Amino acid sequence: MGQIEEFRRKREEQNQRVLEHGHLNTRRFFGLDTAVYREGALSSKTNELLGLVASTVLRCNDCIAYHVDRCAQEGVSTKEFVEAMDVALIVGGSVAIPHVRYAYELWEELVERWD
Amino acid sequence: MGQIEEFRRKREEQNQRVLEHGHLNTRRFFGLDTAVYREGALSSKTNELLGLVASTVLRCNDCIAYHVDRCAQEGVSTKEFVEAMDVALIVGGSVAIPHVRYAYELWEELVERWD
Amino acid sequence: MGQIEEFRRKREEQNQRVLEHGHLNTRRFFGLDTAVYREGALSSKTNELLGLVASTVLRCNDCIAYHVDRCAQEGVSTKEFVEAMDVALIVGGSVAIPHVRYAYELWEELVERWD
Amino acid sequence: MGQIEEFRRKREEQNQRVLEHGHLNTRRFFGLDTAVYREGALSSKTNELLGLVASTVLRCNDCIAYHVDRCAQEGVSTKEFVEAMDVALIVGGSVAIPHVRYAYELWEELVERWD
Amino acid sequence: MGQIEEFRRKREEQNQRVLEHGHLNTRRFFGLDTAVYREGALSSKTNELLGLVASTVLRCNDCIAYHVDRCAQEGVSTKEFVEAMDVALIVGGSVAIPHVRYAYELWEELVERWD
Amino acid sequence: MGQIEEFRRKREEQNQRVLEHGHLNTRRFFGLDTAVYREGALSSKTNELLGLVASTVLRCNDCIAYHVDRCAQEGVSTKEFVEAMDVALIVGGSVAIPHVRYAYELWEELVERWD
Repeated sequence: MGQIEEFRRKREEQNQRVLEHGHLNTRRFFGLDTAVYREGALSSKTNELLGLVASTVLRCNDCIAYHVDRCAQEGVSTKEFVEAMDVALIVGGSVAIPHVRYAYELWEELVERWD
Repeated sequence: MGQIEEFRRKREEQNQRVLEHGHLNTRRFFGLDTAVYREGALSSKTNELLGLVASTVLRCNDCIAYHVDRCAQEGVSTKEFVEAMDVALIVGGSVAIPHVRYAYELWEELVERWD
Repeated sequence: MGQIEEFRRKREEQNQRVLEHGHLNTRRFFGLDTAVYREGALSSKTNELLGLVASTVLRCNDCIAYHVDRCAQEGVSTKEFVEAMDVALIVGGSVAIPHVRYAYELWEELVERWD
Repeated sequence: MGQIEEFRRKREEQNQRVLEHGHLNTRRFFGLDTAVYREGALSSKTNELLGLVASTVLRCNDCIAYHVDRCAQEGVSTKEFVEAMDVALIVGGSVAIPHVRYAYELWEELVERWD
Repeated sequence: MGQIEEFRRKREEQNQRVLEHGHLNTRRFFGLDTAVYREGALSSKTNELLGLVASTVLRCNDCIAYHVDRCAQEGVSTKEFVEAMDVALIVGGSVAIPHVRYAYELWEELVERWD
Repeated sequence: MGQIEEFRRKREEQNQRVLEHGHLNTRRFFGLDTAVYREGALSSKTNELLGLVASTVLRCNDCIAYHVDRCAQEGVSTKEFVEAMDVALIVGGSVAIPHVRYAYELWEELVERWD
């Protein structure tokens, strides 16, 4: 099983625990966390790129895995992925590099071959 | 061996190395790190909740494991745990979610069943 | 006009702009940000202390001003305030010091005299 | 003079000092910081939105001022601005609120009236 | 009065309030915060450079002001200051730029002329 | 194979992926990330200590592993390592402790015995 699939499975299992035992405010926040990425004036694709860059500069690997996965689903191209990572790299500095490395690793797994 | 026990063992082993080879300032800081959670005007329970929320918004899993463990020892109820996590979630945002997930996982291991 | 009053006025004015021009998700998040501090299993006072310590370790002066103000309203004593600040100081380190200084300055303005 | 103009003037003056007295690596980094926002696979507009959201979740007011200004120049609409801010709010949590407030204040100054 | 003098005065006044009203743990932490910069295996000058770079990547202007001031007192040269800032810039990324700008501004005030 | 060797191998493999598929700005940033640690007015040893402390307060384990390794190569003594860690501990606070523990673990592996 690839890293992305393993991530999806673990995340699903952990989210269910939080949503089952959390209270109303917990569920409302999780609802908002889905809602803000939906298509509106900005496309879902742009929103996912925003989520990916925000996750990278904040150096959150699980958030990166989620948004790399969603970016691939929304049809982000490899060139677009690389440019978004470059913005994250310059904004976030060299402490973001381990997270950029992780994002590239997952991207390779998802796109199978670099175009 | 559960995650919490494994965490306790590893933390103990690593702390011993630091305290053995560190200097006076190192030990003094570790001393302060114990002292501030002791009962005073605020109860140990409240202090541990403060430590747990601070650790979650700063997104430090090892710190979360330590304070989840201590909160359970101080008699924090599941309802209280969930509400403290909700404060952390709203203050820290969705980048705190992976850490909230981790805290819930450990909490389940410690309380055995959700009340 | 004191610093706290100036903060309250400016925050109110700025929040109105955001709530007027923001969308549904914006307002929902602001709603949650109020909801999580309400009395539940944890008292409002404990929740405000959690918010204060989280704000201090995240080094957000406006968040500190808000929670210092709310803590005073919820009847937090000076001894409790100082101990909560000590937890924040040890968790957050010396980079939190300028924010602890700011919190003390506001506290003095609010309580008028130290007990 | 508005806040944005004051920001531009101060930033220009301070950047000149850094570029004059900094070394080759300093100038190279400043060069990269311009280069990554240029049109490529992603439009300048998308890049500026990425920069704005990254700046907001990292809670850097000067970075926010710069990217709010650039977003307006690149033709970002108010609806798009609000949605990007919503992503930043949910990712970054309530500690991002003071920075969202600041961004809205500058946006109002730049767009003059909300559409 | 220059920015550095104003910073020194304000910091002194605020620290006195904290040390007067804080508890034993507060004072102990402030003591440690002085102790770790003292000459040991590493010179005070190196320690101050460590403090300056740490403060810059953590983006704490008051901490930067303090360590810029101390670096100048410890005889750090302008070339050394610039190189330390370059490390901070690359590690911390473009969100550190406003803080690097601030550090240069203070440095200019302290050294009076760039060598 | 020790932790350090495993880290070196993984980092090398991941960096090659990024450098092969990244664009010009990606490679330029990686180039700068090497350049700023080179001997100049500050020795490579001092620069590596700056990198180590910056990585510790920013709580980036991979960055810590890299700079612990480089510090050992540049002849940093155990006493110097401990003092630099003390600065990081006080600046970064108790959330830095898990990262200080990790640095000590790697240091022990590299120096083989504490002097």
